[in-house]
Amino acid sequence: MEAQCVEDLKAAIREISDWPKKGILFYDVTTLLKKSDCFEQTVEALTYPFRGMGIDLVLGIEARGFIFAPPVAYALKAGFVPVRKPGKLPAAKLQVEYELEYGTDSLEIHQDAIVPGQRILIVDDLIATGGTAGAVAGLVEKMGATVVGLDFVVELTFLKGRDKLQKYNVHSLLKY
Amino acid sequence: MEAQCVEDLKAAIREISDWPKKGILFYDVTTLLKKSDCFEQTVEALTYPFRGMGIDLVLGIEARGFIFAPPVAYALKAGFVPVRKPGKLPAAKLQVEYELEYGTDSLEIHQDAIVPGQRILIVDDLIATGGTAGAVAGLVEKMGATVVGLDFVVELTFLKGRDKLQKYNVHSLLKY
Repeated sequence: MEAQCVEDLKAAIREISDWPKKGILFYDVTTLLKKSDCFEQTVEALTYPFRGMGIDLVLGIEARGFIFAPPVAYALKAGFVPVRKPGKLPAAKLQVEYELEYGTDSLEIHQDAIVPGQRILIVDDLIATGGTAGAVAGLVEKMGATVVGLDFVVELTFLKGRDKLQKYNVHSLLKY
Repeated sequence: MEAQCVEDLKAAIREISDWPKKGILFYDVTTLLKKSDCFEQTVEALTYPFRGMGIDLVLGIEARGFIFAPPVAYALKAGFVPVRKPGKLPAAKLQVEYELEYGTDSLEIHQDAIVPGQRILIVDDLIATGGTAGAVAGLVEKMGATVVGLDFVVELTFLKGRDKLQKYNVHSLLKY
């Protein structure tokens, strides 16, 4: 299923030059989200390839991944697990580091969020270099669970994030 | 409808003492979210009172409001609008200040996120003093839209947030 709302999904995304910094073209999904039919189509297109695949948990990465992962979890009748920025989760947690253009950043997940053997779908708004999603997928595997797929709204193909994630089933809706 | 999952929803929430600071009892919803049946029941219980009320947009407040508002929007076939911390939204925006225990904080919304006359549901994980939700509701009204309801997972009744929101239809699932 390639999603179509009244206008197509790409036309519903606003392109903003020089944000968050000079030289970056930012794909602003808020203009898509506010259109009920486009939002519904987006959730359904994210969900469709993973129906019937026994997904137990959908992981969303803070902050924009939180917008897409919970409705996908709801549509798949799965649970939702937040992967958060450091210092936000209240109970015992595991941390994973990933590389940025300059330096590193990290994310956290509750230690008891995933039970070994569970089948996991990771959802985020955007795949760029694939560093974040790859780090989260590796952490999920270390926790003894199976990464069934990585699911993105927007894929920046020129950054070749997929190359880093070859061992996984990577799905994206809108390729730029 | 009072929601019931296999265990009841309150039993699925983890209580954590002294977090984020000493003397605070924190209600951790992540243990509820990861249970698919509890998560589904929560979304349905949040949605139920507002079905058939012509909700155009569901507003979610960063960051935990992002977890609940999008599935509610999806279930109501409404659009979703993020209300974000300062500096996160890329296009022209409006800002609203609200009071904290000490000092103030602020949130932002895109100027074009809401069209006058639209019917709005505001969703957040928690109502404490009601300051945040009240500020967002006031901003929605200034933008010419109608606040149909304020919808929360957890209500800390001893903080009397409802008193500040008497002019609105306030709905919460779990009262402490």
